[in-house]
Amino acid sequence: MSDGPTVRDVSDWWSTAVSRIEPDVIELRGRPVQDLIGHTSFVGTIWLLLRGHPPTPAQERLLEAAMVSGVDHGPHAPSIAVARIAATCGVGLNNAVATGVNLLGDVHGGAGEQCMEMLAEVTSRTVAGDTLDRAAASVVEDWRARSKYLPGFGHRFHTVDPRRKPLLGLVEAAAAEGVVDGSYLHAANAIERILASGRQRPVPINVDGCTAVIYGELGFAPPLARGLFVLSRSVGILAHAWEETGQGRRNKGPMPPSILPTYLGTA
Amino acid sequence: MSDGPTVRDVSDWWSTAVSRIEPDVIELRGRPVQDLIGHTSFVGTIWLLLRGHPPTPAQERLLEAAMVSGVDHGPHAPSIAVARIAATCGVGLNNAVATGVNLLGDVHGGAGEQCMEMLAEVTSRTVAGDTLDRAAASVVEDWRARSKYLPGFGHRFHTVDPRRKPLLGLVEAAAAEGVVDGSYLHAANAIERILASGRQRPVPINVDGCTAVIYGELGFAPPLARGLFVLSRSVGILAHAWEETGQGRRNKGPMPPSILPTYLGTA
Amino acid sequence: MSDGPTVRDVSDWWSTAVSRIEPDVIELRGRPVQDLIGHTSFVGTIWLLLRGHPPTPAQERLLEAAMVSGVDHGPHAPSIAVARIAATCGVGLNNAVATGVNLLGDVHGGAGEQCMEMLAEVTSRTVAGDTLDRAAASVVEDWRARSKYLPGFGHRFHTVDPRRKPLLGLVEAAAAEGVVDGSYLHAANAIERILASGRQRPVPINVDGCTAVIYGELGFAPPLARGLFVLSRSVGILAHAWEETGQGRRNKGPMPPSILPTYLGTA
Amino acid sequence: MSDGPTVRDVSDWWSTAVSRIEPDVIELRGRPVQDLIGHTSFVGTIWLLLRGHPPTPAQERLLEAAMVSGVDHGPHAPSIAVARIAATCGVGLNNAVATGVNLLGDVHGGAGEQCMEMLAEVTSRTVAGDTLDRAAASVVEDWRARSKYLPGFGHRFHTVDPRRKPLLGLVEAAAAEGVVDGSYLHAANAIERILASGRQRPVPINVDGCTAVIYGELGFAPPLARGLFVLSRSVGILAHAWEETGQGRRNKGPMPPSILPTYLGTA
Repeated sequence: MSDGPTVRDVSDWWSTAVSRIEPDVIELRGRPVQDLIGHTSFVGTIWLLLRGHPPTPAQERLLEAAMVSGVDHGPHAPSIAVARIAATCGVGLNNAVATGVNLLGDVHGGAGEQCMEMLAEVTSRTVAGDTLDRAAASVVEDWRARSKYLPGFGHRFHTVDPRRKPLLGLVEAAAAEGVVDGSYLHAANAIERILASGRQRPVPINVDGCTAVIYGELGFAPPLARGLFVLSRSVGILAHAWEETGQGRRNKGPMPPSILPTYLGTA
Repeated sequence: MSDGPTVRDVSDWWSTAVSRIEPDVIELRGRPVQDLIGHTSFVGTIWLLLRGHPPTPAQERLLEAAMVSGVDHGPHAPSIAVARIAATCGVGLNNAVATGVNLLGDVHGGAGEQCMEMLAEVTSRTVAGDTLDRAAASVVEDWRARSKYLPGFGHRFHTVDPRRKPLLGLVEAAAAEGVVDGSYLHAANAIERILASGRQRPVPINVDGCTAVIYGELGFAPPLARGLFVLSRSVGILAHAWEETGQGRRNKGPMPPSILPTYLGTA
Repeated sequence: MSDGPTVRDVSDWWSTAVSRIEPDVIELRGRPVQDLIGHTSFVGTIWLLLRGHPPTPAQERLLEAAMVSGVDHGPHAPSIAVARIAATCGVGLNNAVATGVNLLGDVHGGAGEQCMEMLAEVTSRTVAGDTLDRAAASVVEDWRARSKYLPGFGHRFHTVDPRRKPLLGLVEAAAAEGVVDGSYLHAANAIERILASGRQRPVPINVDGCTAVIYGELGFAPPLARGLFVLSRSVGILAHAWEETGQGRRNKGPMPPSILPTYLGTA
Repeated sequence: MSDGPTVRDVSDWWSTAVSRIEPDVIELRGRPVQDLIGHTSFVGTIWLLLRGHPPTPAQERLLEAAMVSGVDHGPHAPSIAVARIAATCGVGLNNAVATGVNLLGDVHGGAGEQCMEMLAEVTSRTVAGDTLDRAAASVVEDWRARSKYLPGFGHRFHTVDPRRKPLLGLVEAAAAEGVVDGSYLHAANAIERILASGRQRPVPINVDGCTAVIYGELGFAPPLARGLFVLSRSVGILAHAWEETGQGRRNKGPMPPSILPTYLGTA
């Protein structure tokens, strides 16, 4: 007869440092949950679970601002639209939210992640001796060779994203106070300058770019730009799905039923 | 030719009171987003989007405590386990989180919603003239006739859920200060007394029950108990999916590959 | 101290009669997969996995017809629309299909399941001694008391669903040949008669009703009406998501970006 | 002021060549659905929707074999495990299937797509003048430089996948009859020879590789290897979710509750 796995092996399969759950014990990153409830903010708990230790108050304020900024972009945003549609199809509110979150992929929610990588490239070239403007110019050139979209810059809808000024203002203040070192901010500013020079219509940084600056300054890994956006946008997804529930539609399509889709014919 | 829909009709199809998004304008519940960033907490924004107006600081503290309490219950919780598995299959972090959230259904995430309805029934019977204990007893009897599970009470794992004391303590304090009226708390206490009397092993309120008390006291509709739990648990789902990503497994199964599932044979 | 679970206990946690997977062995319902490939149809394999044994050729033809009938209902069907939207957001084709399938809930995909239950009620009343028409009338009355929608009957779009005639024709032929006993068909016909009598606009059976008749005649449990519809509709979901991928849009909203959603104002 | 979009613009937003749905009309790729029901197989309908025209009987047989081969790989396969877990959490069967399908990402379901690309590279080098073995060797070398996994080859579980022989046998027969040209088969064979030469343990082609050969020979685009696997695996996902439903567990974790995950401690 085979020895089979030992019980210890089996326990190891799901080993984790995030939480310890045993009878009558719930510890999050080594902290009993009863010590957190009433003492730690929700955003502080997000930071704790993702990073393993709590943020400073100044770090928490910066993260809070970034998470507030991304909650909603209206019912025409794909993540919001599909959740509202889902809410009319006889599924739970959790399924409606999951449907929306599922769409925050490389194109819809991934720009922040890619922008963080791009900004980090600028910084690493300046560390290697380049001037900031030269580093930014060559990084922009490299990214443009690969894609016509520069992650975190430009918006098909807003000329100047209203979230830009307050978000970057908070980073500037935090850099001035030494809370963050400002390297992502400087890289973003340098890219904005390049994208504005000699153009009729500048390509300003958008909300993905602004939050990428914040997440980068705060030391989050690039994939967590997407992860944090997921948590932020889930709020708007939920609010819209809930509003739709109250409107009583069934099997809502993307347009009123009287509009028939154009039929393109057979190949 | 058909009259077709007017453009106005088409715009109405996606009408909303949650947000107004126009070129260079983002308003959330009538408030410009730039006025919220840096001034409003993430939890305050959650309240604003769901309710249409901001919370008082005391309301916000109570909501914050409830949302902190549900973030994680370890890698064996279905919502966490599937997100960790997803993270090893070559999908985005958003898809992994969506996979976990999708499981917060009637059994996994819906207990709070059902508990709110049960507690509201107790209150409405007391309003109609019953004593609290009689109202609670008859409501418990009714629910037991329909299901062997009483939503929000009992836990297959914890004898006393460590989240019970701090959560109910905050509600008691809020009731004493007049922030909430205490009706959900009293109903829950009455049910706990019934479930403890004459039993060797009492059935204490669990975290779904405690948060249902809070959401009820704060005036949320029952389905939002599930909705708010979704936002809360998403944090742990993300943290675990992210940790799993770092462990480098591919196509992780629920058990080590050396363990073969028992084959039950053909019918 | 407990010894902990034995390996046997652990193996039992995932016990199954669907398949046996061991090194170099893949058996589906007791049949080596290599004996199925090239010998069994895809629909025959669907039946085998769900039922435990293969269908007769006549049963398979009936199931095949039902599954062909539900594959697509155009880009305005919620399940199709969200998958097309998903395909523009930078997620995998599997994520796009999952997004569509997730919406086949109680309202969108569940009518067949409910219709099977309703038809089974008619039959059980006739078995108890009622005439078919009286049984159908009282069942319709009961369902109408609970909901204004009669599952499987009526369509907001088609006057007569073009799938009705071929599907019910196949069931009639199968009943005439003794392949099925016709009880679900007779119940559905009786309900249609009731819904047509004395009305200007009859409420004919729709595709959910027709496939419910087939699944019922073939002995599937009601929840599998939804399950089989999921497999069927996945085909259209995939075809539409794939077509959308080829059109190159990014973050496609439900309407052209030039149409702004109506803002309903603050409460 | 702009006139806004016309109805025509709005209709074009959801234009499609897959289906035409108008009152009392359902056409799939130009064919009335009533002409398909009872005349076309489910697999033939899959081909029709994806390709725009129906398959020949020989093409259909090959596609059918590939789709039968991938339906299930037991409850430890991630896609199956998560669907079974979902089925215990109080969500619909459609949500459980969606949960499983969502995991068929680059690592779990994407190997076929990548394998098709790899095999196509081999063929294009032979067309450019290379011998088959040299082309295969250089392609393997290129892929190995990028990843330690060669898509479609090797299995962590099976020494020889039992699906290999019947699947490749069917392709060989089809190539002999001129149904397909055999280029993907020859490329796959050449890679297998390279991976076997001079090794104690050869790395045989796996089911992703075998089906990639079939999909390639049949002229499907590489992303549809994943798409077709989604349709195939959905069958096993549904069968397992349905079986789990009947076992009555609630909130099933990946392991028996008596096994506690190893806690790795704080950083």
